[in-house]
Amino acid sequence: MKKKPLILVTNDDGVTAPGIRALIAVMKQLGDVVVVAPDSPQSATGHAITINNTLYINKIDIDPDIETEYSCSGTPVDCVKFAVNEILHRKPVLCVSGVNHGSNSSINVIYSGTMSAAVEAGIEGIPAIGFSLLDYNWDADFEPAKPFIKKITEEVLANGLPDGVILNVNIPKLPQKEIKGIKVCRQAKAMWQEKFDKRTNPMGRDYYWLTGKFVNMDKGEDTDEWALANGYVSVVPVQFDLTAHHAIQGLNGWGMNEE
Amino acid sequence: MKKKPLILVTNDDGVTAPGIRALIAVMKQLGDVVVVAPDSPQSATGHAITINNTLYINKIDIDPDIETEYSCSGTPVDCVKFAVNEILHRKPVLCVSGVNHGSNSSINVIYSGTMSAAVEAGIEGIPAIGFSLLDYNWDADFEPAKPFIKKITEEVLANGLPDGVILNVNIPKLPQKEIKGIKVCRQAKAMWQEKFDKRTNPMGRDYYWLTGKFVNMDKGEDTDEWALANGYVSVVPVQFDLTAHHAIQGLNGWGMNEE
Repeated sequence: MKKKPLILVTNDDGVTAPGIRALIAVMKQLGDVVVVAPDSPQSATGHAITINNTLYINKIDIDPDIETEYSCSGTPVDCVKFAVNEILHRKPVLCVSGVNHGSNSSINVIYSGTMSAAVEAGIEGIPAIGFSLLDYNWDADFEPAKPFIKKITEEVLANGLPDGVILNVNIPKLPQKEIKGIKVCRQAKAMWQEKFDKRTNPMGRDYYWLTGKFVNMDKGEDTDEWALANGYVSVVPVQFDLTAHHAIQGLNGWGMNEE
Repeated sequence: MKKKPLILVTNDDGVTAPGIRALIAVMKQLGDVVVVAPDSPQSATGHAITINNTLYINKIDIDPDIETEYSCSGTPVDCVKFAVNEILHRKPVLCVSGVNHGSNSSINVIYSGTMSAAVEAGIEGIPAIGFSLLDYNWDADFEPAKPFIKKITEEVLANGLPDGVILNVNIPKLPQKEIKGIKVCRQAKAMWQEKFDKRTNPMGRDYYWLTGKFVNMDKGEDTDEWALANGYVSVVPVQFDLTAHHAIQGLNGWGMNEE
């Protein structure tokens, strides 16, 4: 009997989040699912790993269909490292991360624990996809997203991914019939304009909350922001070779080795 | 009187680390220095930001030459955001991060708090450089690194950096006269092979330490790993547009919008 493909599922909102449960529901249709996800929310942890602290791992049993389900006290990237090195006996054919409660489009990719887990799998040579829904609510409706998650995952399983490339998939918050389709995009040039909300604690000491406004500086119609604003699911191929290859020649023209 | 250029200095090893003190010493020769750095070590925090917790900021006075010096309870990226939005009254001409105690070459760039701080400054439109010395010791000798730090910083101040490009500078652990020069490089293809060190705590519960071995799969002589192994300071231009532009055409050939 042919073994079903092994699929590793993780996220950054924590193992009990509705988003990862929706993702698991889709992945169960496509393969054998192993879950290793944070035991608490780890949003915006980026590519952090736990090197100055201990890691606790718990075998859990949330979904009776799944044999291997763990929670981990660390970051999403820790989860992927632990799964690959300590839990899995064969290499997964795919790692999926999410579904994140909220957007990871544009520059958000760099702050995202969801995407960093997928990127870590990519570094370890495992094809990987991060999924995010543009709805921050804990009780967001993931049903309209499911057919798109399934389709994109099937395409990755069928076609593979180029070496060093991970997919960043964002899904608009729309009823399913209003989603126009899937668009391959580039990351829009955008940033957060921060505002620090200053408060005083009961002991009289000032503290701050980081808040901000997302600003899209990019008018391009080939960007993820454009696709999402126009009712499409955005798919951005992401790489972890951060070298700005186009800048090397210019830097070589500087006199860095001259007195 | 011409104002001296404003230089923001941060790091991930914490504001009292010898590495940032060495960096401040060099920057004081080149401009007006403002320091905003973590109040405790934040290695390997990647591009994490603090959104589910409060931030405390302390005005400190370690260096009598510097008027504006703060520590922050958050991550290196938080420090840059707080500095730009709450502390600085004019935009810095440069942000430097480090000197990190230990390498941030190759794939380490993605885990590095030092480099993430520099990348964050880049996102905010500030030319930025991350500096790392290949010596993890707290009492590492930063003296041989200083002339190279100064030279590279002067070149950036003179030439500027292309839009969206940050420099990742690594310096070998060598006496100054054995350092052969500065090489512009690409990020070597490498990864960490993890090993989880399992222990049992006094209450009888298992826990793990993340450890690992760095594996360079890249034989290229144009990489940062090659440069460092051969006695050069490596300079890798780094970008935060993570789009794998070369992969877009291939993905468009998939049947993602077909039934």
